[in-house]
Amino acid sequence: MKYSFLNDYNTLAHPKVFEYLQKYINEANVGYGLDEHSKNAKKMILDKIGKDYDVHFLVGGTSANKIVLSHFLKPYEAVICPESAHINRRETGALEATGHKILTAKSEDGKITLEGIKEVLAEHTDEHMVLPRIVSISYTTEYGTVYSKEELKDIADLCKANNLLLYVDGARLTYGLAATALSLKEFAKIPDFFTIGGTKAGAMLGEAVVLKKSKAAENFRFSLKQNGGMLAKGFLIGIQFEALLTDNLLLKICEDANKKAVYLKEKLKELNIEFLFDSNTNLQFPILSNKAVKALKEKYLFSVWEPRKNDAVIRLVTTYDTDIKMIDQFVGDLRKEL
Amino acid sequence: MKYSFLNDYNTLAHPKVFEYLQKYINEANVGYGLDEHSKNAKKMILDKIGKDYDVHFLVGGTSANKIVLSHFLKPYEAVICPESAHINRRETGALEATGHKILTAKSEDGKITLEGIKEVLAEHTDEHMVLPRIVSISYTTEYGTVYSKEELKDIADLCKANNLLLYVDGARLTYGLAATALSLKEFAKIPDFFTIGGTKAGAMLGEAVVLKKSKAAENFRFSLKQNGGMLAKGFLIGIQFEALLTDNLLLKICEDANKKAVYLKEKLKELNIEFLFDSNTNLQFPILSNKAVKALKEKYLFSVWEPRKNDAVIRLVTTYDTDIKMIDQFVGDLRKEL
Amino acid sequence: MKYSFLNDYNTLAHPKVFEYLQKYINEANVGYGLDEHSKNAKKMILDKIGKDYDVHFLVGGTSANKIVLSHFLKPYEAVICPESAHINRRETGALEATGHKILTAKSEDGKITLEGIKEVLAEHTDEHMVLPRIVSISYTTEYGTVYSKEELKDIADLCKANNLLLYVDGARLTYGLAATALSLKEFAKIPDFFTIGGTKAGAMLGEAVVLKKSKAAENFRFSLKQNGGMLAKGFLIGIQFEALLTDNLLLKICEDANKKAVYLKEKLKELNIEFLFDSNTNLQFPILSNKAVKALKEKYLFSVWEPRKNDAVIRLVTTYDTDIKMIDQFVGDLRKEL
Amino acid sequence: MKYSFLNDYNTLAHPKVFEYLQKYINEANVGYGLDEHSKNAKKMILDKIGKDYDVHFLVGGTSANKIVLSHFLKPYEAVICPESAHINRRETGALEATGHKILTAKSEDGKITLEGIKEVLAEHTDEHMVLPRIVSISYTTEYGTVYSKEELKDIADLCKANNLLLYVDGARLTYGLAATALSLKEFAKIPDFFTIGGTKAGAMLGEAVVLKKSKAAENFRFSLKQNGGMLAKGFLIGIQFEALLTDNLLLKICEDANKKAVYLKEKLKELNIEFLFDSNTNLQFPILSNKAVKALKEKYLFSVWEPRKNDAVIRLVTTYDTDIKMIDQFVGDLRKEL
Repeated sequence: MKYSFLNDYNTLAHPKVFEYLQKYINEANVGYGLDEHSKNAKKMILDKIGKDYDVHFLVGGTSANKIVLSHFLKPYEAVICPESAHINRRETGALEATGHKILTAKSEDGKITLEGIKEVLAEHTDEHMVLPRIVSISYTTEYGTVYSKEELKDIADLCKANNLLLYVDGARLTYGLAATALSLKEFAKIPDFFTIGGTKAGAMLGEAVVLKKSKAAENFRFSLKQNGGMLAKGFLIGIQFEALLTDNLLLKICEDANKKAVYLKEKLKELNIEFLFDSNTNLQFPILSNKAVKALKEKYLFSVWEPRKNDAVIRLVTTYDTDIKMIDQFVGDLRKEL
Repeated sequence: MKYSFLNDYNTLAHPKVFEYLQKYINEANVGYGLDEHSKNAKKMILDKIGKDYDVHFLVGGTSANKIVLSHFLKPYEAVICPESAHINRRETGALEATGHKILTAKSEDGKITLEGIKEVLAEHTDEHMVLPRIVSISYTTEYGTVYSKEELKDIADLCKANNLLLYVDGARLTYGLAATALSLKEFAKIPDFFTIGGTKAGAMLGEAVVLKKSKAAENFRFSLKQNGGMLAKGFLIGIQFEALLTDNLLLKICEDANKKAVYLKEKLKELNIEFLFDSNTNLQFPILSNKAVKALKEKYLFSVWEPRKNDAVIRLVTTYDTDIKMIDQFVGDLRKEL
Repeated sequence: MKYSFLNDYNTLAHPKVFEYLQKYINEANVGYGLDEHSKNAKKMILDKIGKDYDVHFLVGGTSANKIVLSHFLKPYEAVICPESAHINRRETGALEATGHKILTAKSEDGKITLEGIKEVLAEHTDEHMVLPRIVSISYTTEYGTVYSKEELKDIADLCKANNLLLYVDGARLTYGLAATALSLKEFAKIPDFFTIGGTKAGAMLGEAVVLKKSKAAENFRFSLKQNGGMLAKGFLIGIQFEALLTDNLLLKICEDANKKAVYLKEKLKELNIEFLFDSNTNLQFPILSNKAVKALKEKYLFSVWEPRKNDAVIRLVTTYDTDIKMIDQFVGDLRKEL
Repeated sequence: MKYSFLNDYNTLAHPKVFEYLQKYINEANVGYGLDEHSKNAKKMILDKIGKDYDVHFLVGGTSANKIVLSHFLKPYEAVICPESAHINRRETGALEATGHKILTAKSEDGKITLEGIKEVLAEHTDEHMVLPRIVSISYTTEYGTVYSKEELKDIADLCKANNLLLYVDGARLTYGLAATALSLKEFAKIPDFFTIGGTKAGAMLGEAVVLKKSKAAENFRFSLKQNGGMLAKGFLIGIQFEALLTDNLLLKICEDANKKAVYLKEKLKELNIEFLFDSNTNLQFPILSNKAVKALKEKYLFSVWEPRKNDAVIRLVTTYDTDIKMIDQFVGDLRKEL
């Protein structure tokens, strides 16, 4: 059996999440997310960020992105995102399937640039083209990098000045927060709506969607239901978020995984391995020789992100259940190939 | 705390399903339904019905209906179903959101009629109208009634003769099979595609989609992903279906719930209570006086299906964890109101 | 060559419309409806109805209905209309193709009823169902009948009280206005948006869309373009509307056709022919014996609207170029069959 | 009044097209494109290209592209085109509004490259991404350049080898054919479906859609109607195509415009003006100093295609009614600015 650095969604759930579910195995609850656990989990989030938000739970990342974005768009409106965005590259055209064009803007280190957004706006001048309406970014990005608070604010300011909404795909939000000095409360003030990912941080499934209260945010449950994002047993997600939000479990899970990732990064740097970008979160993108990749593939599971001529960018992902000894072993095995 | 006859999805999961999940809490699996548990669960289904099918797992009923139906339709094609169909009445226009019109056909006892289908076909004669392409029925129906094998075959024959596909929404499929002499194997031969519901029969979440192999059925995983129906931790559903298919747990869960429902029906009949339709499955629709409804609402949770002048059709749902003593108590409380 | 009572769009254009086009055959104009003719035609409409409206021109009825309705709807919102509505029965699911469900309400004489709208509203109570948002009616209706001013106002009031917008499909608007005491100005005050049909009243093609100014009406040209409703040579429609609005040509065309239709109706009544509904517009629905229908089909083109056991409802349509002698001849031929 | 080099759709129609329409001003025809003129015009096209095609007429370019492409696509399938493609840049997301993603491939001289298509195919490997299904190119391109027969065949071969359909947006098809040795018959053999533009070559409006007969091409009239592309007075387009196809009028119109464009190109070259690309069709993209552009704007209408630092790419368009004297005058005025 190979050891996996493949992703952060390869085990059922964090043991504490599972224990929490077990407590309620016989309890009867009403359906569709109107149960007490879901209400309580929402309250726990609002207690952290303040009252001016609506919170909804739904099943997964693609589903969340599609539902949230399409809820806020008129038929002719479009979304601006980096080329590397999950919504652009890895969701089988889910957003386009709701009728909306995606416009890609230049990015650096996987992060959208102000310059890039401005270029897209400058090109879209009349009704023969779609109307840009939302800027969508990921935090952390697909490359494990994280926007600083100032970068986020600059983007938000640019959006405000141009009648654009700002959305943050937070499938790995807490990994990013754990890697910076930014609190959830400070973060929440910046975008118009965002998600807090559960699936990639210890839950079986589930993402929280947080919407700043507004006229446009109303009736969100209609969008949820229409897109198949409303679970009959909604309390399944509510209970898990209760678990994740109790004693800061979610944050601890991400801090722990980040720490292991940074440990791995430092060890690889000692071997003079270079990285695509510098990341302090649980996604690391070292560049290895093809020979080394081939050898490591014998014993470990990981993605080859970008095959190149003589080497390859690989993606290594750590989680709460990554074994630090296996990191050492991985590094040791790599050393032999250098 | 009121006792619930509200629905069959009010507890997290059947204990055996939960136990089964617990066994794999630390096991690493690949994502997106390509894991060994999902493969095994599919095999267990194919072992029951034969090889000429593809099986996929997805998160919920609305999601399943929307994805399956839209996968098989060209933009101008439409679905025929009874007025009472879930896809028509209770899914917030999920199918229309994929661009397709729903055409309703006359039904009796909640079951579509051949006459009704023929009328719809007769009305749709040219390109100024949509082209009927799929007949969609529920088994069991929204009213707990069940098509006989002959009725199913007659519908399938009518479909074949008119270039229509037949789809069965099986959110409560096994309740229906348990209530009749029909095996899953015999059943599977009839429609072109159908679902086997897990959510309403003991799983936390999850529906199996079964497609007869065909050119049109190919690439279904693209539709799954595009519609947000592909879970990152797909093995969560695979494991649960393994549990449900082991030792016929799924069938036993449904048989048990049906038995309790029939017990309830008989007890109510002794009180000369009338029913909207005769049902032998876990959905019962007795007609009670408004006075009785009001009194029972004090102690029990249930839906008022159809408020009428002096009385009301209510819906009572039993499950594997319905307590037979509570049925007796419910009947006793009703007797006092008569 | 059979004489045609088939429809009101069987000749290229009214001679005066054609003459008007001919005047501008060599004139260069800017594209996409931003030309001086289109601006002038809009001004001519605003001069009639007041300033608080936006006017756009587009190619045809199905196109107009689809674009206007979808422009105002959020993804989960629905349209209420009579079962007989063109958008429901004769547009190949064009509205559903934009993602929206159509809800049908009870009608009388082809006209939607207040009772019917209320029933639909009463049934749609939560997010498991679509949210009714627009009531769409035709004026004149598919059956040639016309809402009185009071009926229109009652519908508009009901809409206002229930957060519904009112749309009038005016493919034959001016026929209706010509048949009643209602002026375009009075009419325009009632709905939130409506069309003024050109195609069925003397133009080669072209419908004017009139929108009460509002936040929601903004950016309509994006919807026009996205749906293929914006003609490169937009001035083609602008010029025709200039023609139709000069010396009240549009109204005269419709008055003339209505007069002929009423003449036909009176003549048929003298033969004791019954009608499906009483109409004073250019659509007449007499009920003839199958024998008579068969005989008349030899010499005339017309639609059999509804075949019945021993007789049939047929549709006879008059236009500005219907020959009154041919009406006499038709009636004479019918008399022989009685 | 400024003289216009703005586009090829700024006058109502070629005089011969108008005369042709005038002949039928009083003739009654059946609706929706089922008339004798439309049938005859289709026959005239088939007489040129052979029998194995279906021909349909519709209103405009955006409409045609949207309807044809969406007719052939399953929900998760995508279209590959150059970045500069009209469907990608100038149709307000019309194709995405039908649910489909557009993938852009590298181009040279406005023409898609084989290399570019292969790159897109290489990147799209599984169901987390859309499935490329159609390659869509313009002939002539947005830049007035034209694919050679060999280039077209190479693209078609690549498509065939990769289960891709080839579509040609022929809004200016005949300009391209007129500029090369390629006959319509030879051309028609190459793509799976294409359009023959009328609007930009002398018609008031109208595009012919030509589909190689196939299972997938069936039921196209449903797509036409659903998308608002079926004109009530379909004979309006049929008659115009009869005119355009009589005595090779369409070809002559394009030859004439091309000749004037080449004359203009030669004159500008004598002034050492450079061009973005070399074009022999009616679209020319010279690069002028900002000073020259400003001066010419005083007397002429034309588009500034791409503003740059010290100069600008402008677009000059000739048509059948471009006055050769005005070209001389334009060149003379430019000379003064050099």
